[in-house]
Amino acid sequence: MSKHGSSSGNSSCQRSICPVACTLDIVGDKWTLLLVRDLFMGKVTYSEFQQSPENIPTNLLADRLKRLEHYGMISRSKYQERPVRYNYRLTEKGKALWPVMKEIMHWGNQYIPGTLDAREILQNINTAKVE
Amino acid sequence: MSKHGSSSGNSSCQRSICPVACTLDIVGDKWTLLLVRDLFMGKVTYSEFQQSPENIPTNLLADRLKRLEHYGMISRSKYQERPVRYNYRLTEKGKALWPVMKEIMHWGNQYIPGTLDAREILQNINTAKVE
Repeated sequence: MSKHGSSSGNSSCQRSICPVACTLDIVGDKWTLLLVRDLFMGKVTYSEFQQSPENIPTNLLADRLKRLEHYGMISRSKYQERPVRYNYRLTEKGKALWPVMKEIMHWGNQYIPGTLDAREILQNINTAKVE
Repeated sequence: MSKHGSSSGNSSCQRSICPVACTLDIVGDKWTLLLVRDLFMGKVTYSEFQQSPENIPTNLLADRLKRLEHYGMISRSKYQERPVRYNYRLTEKGKALWPVMKEIMHWGNQYIPGTLDAREILQNINTAKVE
């Protein structure tokens, strides 16, 4: 067993068999879905994630990327040898969070004054990534 | 300023103006959306929330109910005097999370083996509550 659940990564249910609880076991925190947002927006490198306005702390960024990879939601590929650097990209499982993201953006726009219009965000998203 | 943000509760944006970040500032944890799920399923009392299979710790339950009320997502009404007891119900703002919940359930069913079929959960939900 790794820190992030079963080593197979097949089942993530820890608290109950409720799909909401099981999903929150993976993405229920303040940072994971922000990384997913960044990945949808085309960011792929560690330093690109760090440039987002929320200023994710380095240790949390490393942990969340590891978690997302553990659960098969992103894949990692080496793009530089010295020092070793990786690109991160959403897998099908990660991309399948798109409808969740869209509804969260919609709710935020509707109920939290001052949020950036989702339509502006969507313009920055390569639709090829989310189909 | 209260512990849970601005006293007006009008804006919850703390980290950026991104609607995803702002929404996660409110519901980005492992428990808040489980309470929202319970409320959609018709649970209204403290003890009903405690009976859910995830066994929310008492201090977290109290904190999350306070947060949800602070952000105008639930309302509270007294149903007993001695000792004082309250019912909790989703407001329009809380009910508006329904599409988010539905997409989370859908993703969980699709990608986490062993989760309870959302259709079974939906049967227990009074549709009047979510319209």
